[in-house]
Amino acid sequence: MPQPAEIRIFYAEMESVFHKILVKHSFSEAKAAVCSRIFADNSLDGVYTHGVNRFPKFVQMVSENYVVGRNEPSKIGGFGALEQWNGNLGPGPNNAIVCTARAMELADANGIGCVALCNTNHWMRGGTYGWKAAKKGYAFICWTNTIANMPGWGAKDSHLGNNPLILAIPKDDEAIVLDMAVSQFSYGAMEKFAMQGKTLPVPGGYDEKGQMTTDPTKVLKTQRSLPIGYWKGSGLSLLLDILAAVLSSGRATYEITEQKVESAVSQVFIAISLSNLHNSSAINTVINNIVRDYHSASPDDSNNAILYPGERVLQTRNKNSVEGIPVNMEVWSEILKLM
Amino acid sequence: MPQPAEIRIFYAEMESVFHKILVKHSFSEAKAAVCSRIFADNSLDGVYTHGVNRFPKFVQMVSENYVVGRNEPSKIGGFGALEQWNGNLGPGPNNAIVCTARAMELADANGIGCVALCNTNHWMRGGTYGWKAAKKGYAFICWTNTIANMPGWGAKDSHLGNNPLILAIPKDDEAIVLDMAVSQFSYGAMEKFAMQGKTLPVPGGYDEKGQMTTDPTKVLKTQRSLPIGYWKGSGLSLLLDILAAVLSSGRATYEITEQKVESAVSQVFIAISLSNLHNSSAINTVINNIVRDYHSASPDDSNNAILYPGERVLQTRNKNSVEGIPVNMEVWSEILKLM
Repeated sequence: MPQPAEIRIFYAEMESVFHKILVKHSFSEAKAAVCSRIFADNSLDGVYTHGVNRFPKFVQMVSENYVVGRNEPSKIGGFGALEQWNGNLGPGPNNAIVCTARAMELADANGIGCVALCNTNHWMRGGTYGWKAAKKGYAFICWTNTIANMPGWGAKDSHLGNNPLILAIPKDDEAIVLDMAVSQFSYGAMEKFAMQGKTLPVPGGYDEKGQMTTDPTKVLKTQRSLPIGYWKGSGLSLLLDILAAVLSSGRATYEITEQKVESAVSQVFIAISLSNLHNSSAINTVINNIVRDYHSASPDDSNNAILYPGERVLQTRNKNSVEGIPVNMEVWSEILKLM
Repeated sequence: MPQPAEIRIFYAEMESVFHKILVKHSFSEAKAAVCSRIFADNSLDGVYTHGVNRFPKFVQMVSENYVVGRNEPSKIGGFGALEQWNGNLGPGPNNAIVCTARAMELADANGIGCVALCNTNHWMRGGTYGWKAAKKGYAFICWTNTIANMPGWGAKDSHLGNNPLILAIPKDDEAIVLDMAVSQFSYGAMEKFAMQGKTLPVPGGYDEKGQMTTDPTKVLKTQRSLPIGYWKGSGLSLLLDILAAVLSSGRATYEITEQKVESAVSQVFIAISLSNLHNSSAINTVINNIVRDYHSASPDDSNNAILYPGERVLQTRNKNSVEGIPVNMEVWSEILKLM
């Protein structure tokens, strides 16, 4: 199948286009600035599925009022270093940035800070908030629940979300950021493999006979994707959902699923201040020593490079900064029509 | 192969035997009481590998002074709700219980509390601390690093630990507790499959040709076990190690590995108070509603029951309470010789 034509759009242009479109769709200048930067950053970092490729769908969600462009998050409860916020169905990336910043403030005052956020919307790429906090010097953990899109272990139908979990820590002036959905592959990733006629590198779900398979078309048909580590990822998904719903007083995966549309999700943001630790001046050396040992392993024959989480992102970011961000021409022309 | 003969030992007897042995091996009465209860509880819950079966090895580590029975943990740093403690090479279960309790105290005062612990020893079963905190009404997250026992993604030799991660939340008078090493199978589990002549239910590592295999004997030979979710568990292991070493100012996996003996590990304990949340009175209902939906999924044909993490533990605990704890006779006679 021929690849659709690709163009390269430079960061500043992409951000400016996103900004104009968001302002036209009820965003204030300030909120459009934050949100357009997040979509452009995600694209620059190579996470196109939650950047430029997702932007038209995001604007559609705004148009249909599932995402309410003008709404701000508000504090609804909490105690000390633990706060509960309501996203008031505002834009997920904006709400998440506010709560990330608030968790860091709480960590400044208390060593550790936690913000749990209900009634928010898809935050796009969870890694955004990990990079943000880690580059400012914090250890950071956050996660979100999602609509049901994965069966539990022993189950045929999906009652669990893929609930992305993010862990981040500073490294030099950048960060190490794990941004991990608890399904082995997203449906988007499996569709891409299928379109390219490729098999998955490891089993991604079940075929119609209930056998695990690396054929993405079969998993797309059964909609029985696999959790990472089978029973382990299944349990992790359930706990992340319970913690998010309980701490935020928000909707659980099953309630989001009942709505049919993925809106009003629940999220948790935990920041830890490193600057007041007794070993704070040694931390960057410690991290680099661990990475040096990790990189020193003998490579296997699989051509899978031994990279720490986020290492490839840095390579892509540099390349896309210089050459422009690759965008499918049809996607870009669809976006330009929203201006 | 014939199964070795098994006897049933009741909880009170097991705890009493452990207690006497620990007192004989430099533990105070108070520390022996805590530690013997943890070993007996783990056995009661069916986690024999980190209960009765591990007890002789634990006493040997005490005898060889890798685990210093009389040493207490001490606070060495921190700020507000975040504290750094030194385990002073004391017994891992005792140190972990102290830090779990301290994290809960910090959560009482601040909403959330975090204790990072360096220079401690193997905590046996991480779930112990999750059950402890969740049964007292806290949401709880903890993890430990370990000696290197798992290759990173793309690597042949082990530079990562299996770094168990625990997430726990109360449910009724009990708890939901995920206690998950980030390797797909422990070497202990694979040895058990191999001894019984069974294949693994899913691939557990690589054979000598670098192919993934469900044959436990081949993985035991290559020592190339698999992380959960392949590249995802590899990244998770690395981040858990970095966070534990940085926050505690303790040893990272590579430093523990250089010692040859798994001692002086690093751990993190995070407790979140649920009682001050604005929705606190509704939380148990929320959790039970989520579990009800999770259980309502259609079972597949695999005979894998749809259980939440910790659900099987409750069944085992009840059975072992009534019938006694099953113990290999040789293991029990080895333990009695330590009295």
